[in-house]
Amino acid sequence: MRSSFYEGNRRFRVGPAARPTPGPGETLLRVRRVGICGTDLHIFQGHLDHRIPRGGVIGHETLAEIAEAPSASGFGSGERVVVEPLRTCGACRACRMGAAYLCYRLRVLGVEEPGGMQDYWAVPTDRLLRVPTTLSDDEAAVIEPLAVATHDVRRAEVKPGDAVLVFGGGPIGALIAMVARHRGARVVVAEVNPFRVEMLGKLGLDVVGPGRDLKAFVDEWTGGDGADVVFEVTGNPAAVKAMTDLVRVWGTISMVAIHGEPLPVDLYRFFARELTMHGSRLYSRGDWEEAIRLAAAGAVTLAPLVSRKIPLESLQQGMEEALRGGPVMKVLIDLTTE
Amino acid sequence: MRSSFYEGNRRFRVGPAARPTPGPGETLLRVRRVGICGTDLHIFQGHLDHRIPRGGVIGHETLAEIAEAPSASGFGSGERVVVEPLRTCGACRACRMGAAYLCYRLRVLGVEEPGGMQDYWAVPTDRLLRVPTTLSDDEAAVIEPLAVATHDVRRAEVKPGDAVLVFGGGPIGALIAMVARHRGARVVVAEVNPFRVEMLGKLGLDVVGPGRDLKAFVDEWTGGDGADVVFEVTGNPAAVKAMTDLVRVWGTISMVAIHGEPLPVDLYRFFARELTMHGSRLYSRGDWEEAIRLAAAGAVTLAPLVSRKIPLESLQQGMEEALRGGPVMKVLIDLTTE
Repeated sequence: MRSSFYEGNRRFRVGPAARPTPGPGETLLRVRRVGICGTDLHIFQGHLDHRIPRGGVIGHETLAEIAEAPSASGFGSGERVVVEPLRTCGACRACRMGAAYLCYRLRVLGVEEPGGMQDYWAVPTDRLLRVPTTLSDDEAAVIEPLAVATHDVRRAEVKPGDAVLVFGGGPIGALIAMVARHRGARVVVAEVNPFRVEMLGKLGLDVVGPGRDLKAFVDEWTGGDGADVVFEVTGNPAAVKAMTDLVRVWGTISMVAIHGEPLPVDLYRFFARELTMHGSRLYSRGDWEEAIRLAAAGAVTLAPLVSRKIPLESLQQGMEEALRGGPVMKVLIDLTTE
Repeated sequence: MRSSFYEGNRRFRVGPAARPTPGPGETLLRVRRVGICGTDLHIFQGHLDHRIPRGGVIGHETLAEIAEAPSASGFGSGERVVVEPLRTCGACRACRMGAAYLCYRLRVLGVEEPGGMQDYWAVPTDRLLRVPTTLSDDEAAVIEPLAVATHDVRRAEVKPGDAVLVFGGGPIGALIAMVARHRGARVVVAEVNPFRVEMLGKLGLDVVGPGRDLKAFVDEWTGGDGADVVFEVTGNPAAVKAMTDLVRVWGTISMVAIHGEPLPVDLYRFFARELTMHGSRLYSRGDWEEAIRLAAAGAVTLAPLVSRKIPLESLQQGMEEALRGGPVMKVLIDLTTE
């Protein structure tokens, strides 16, 4: 079987490896699809070298089939599954209060532990969820980011009629926009990449493109009130600078993006308008189940988000291209081809 | 009668003035006490010159008695009252959604409109609240900051047993600590001013004084979990830098202080621990009523917070001293003396 290995210094190597042996409570999967995520690009750039071992296998947005079903697991060989890629300690404050996905000693499959960028993968059986047969492999491979978006929208308590502004129209931003729209919100995405602006338009989303005065737009859109909810999904300091001016009194800012450095925030605006900001990370089991329901019901459109599929052998090139930006949304590694 | 006038350039003038004539819906008060607030110190330093007219009368923490009771007002001459010092537009998004104290066109008595630092004062009758006879004039003069603290604790949803850290033990910080303690929380105040440290101790509050490693203290106090709620009441950038490290997963940061400039905030920590931060400003009518109940019930101790009383003629000197810091908590202007 093939596996990929993170070697540091912006290098991945693909080569033969021994098939993993599932431990107690684990199931062996045959991986079919793995998405390249923003976190993977952070790994590629060395930002997570303190978390990932040299020679580690990344990949946490996966679609696989059961290779060997453990007895009494309830799964059958060949069944398609997605993987909630988390190992939690069960003992820290987060685990004890029901926030296990925020475990103080969290280990993510695809970061601290081996991920899905290999032909065979041994994972904890209790982290598997079945995929409805109506979803294609490509669609199912986007369930992980959809679970993120479902979590983000739930946590922001988006309500029908809300004016929701999403900073950033990459895969997560687009999914947040679609989930919020499905919840009955009025949604606008702010995005500067022309390829993404066009794709968001094809998804039927309203977009504020480059060169527009966002404050003037929001003022006109909301009659001077400000947006009810703003999602920051860009990781760009300019969005952090702008976000506080675009939210109404008692409004909500959802911090979805990863900002590696502390950034200036207008705390006076928080005071004056009694704004709320919260961080939003990962997902609970319920978010995964809701994501699968939304996908199966066609409440969100997933297939167009996949802008490119590459074989595992092209991982290095795929990373370099994804980092360059340009005409790209979600890049999937297709492990059923060579 | 005497009045005081803000002249800009860190100058107040006290001199004779015509007694105000109450307009429709207004009541003439004889002012007895006015507290000097942090906002007043901002005015003194010129930070609010865009909001306050030259020659304006400041003072919004007041205790007064009815000088002339309007007919059918329900008030009698000589009754003691406190004043909710706000005029709101009734038409903006904030007013329309029940957040009138955050009115987009808010006018504060003592900032945009004449305040209480004068012998007689005409105010909207519907902003008056009766003071229980069991409270002294000095205690009643602290009801306004107590309404702020009551609001802050309510908005932060402090719960019994919560580990609550209050950054800053000035009057507002001390009141927040006492209200949170009354709600059943375990409360610690971080304060560096030795005079205030001693006073907080006399109020029975636990204090982390200067020179202590706050992170180490909170880790030990909470068994490594982090505080449930942190109130930032200092306005000091060091507190903003520290606050995100001291809160547990899903914890709350209440931004009570005024930070005039955007400050670096650890947004990664917001993401990683799904923290929440909200601004907290002013009060609703319900917060005032609750503050009066708490004061009347002796749930909070108010008298020791008054560290000094001065006549109106000493306003200039009082401002200069309050700005210098040192051995000072709440300075009251006593308008019943000369």
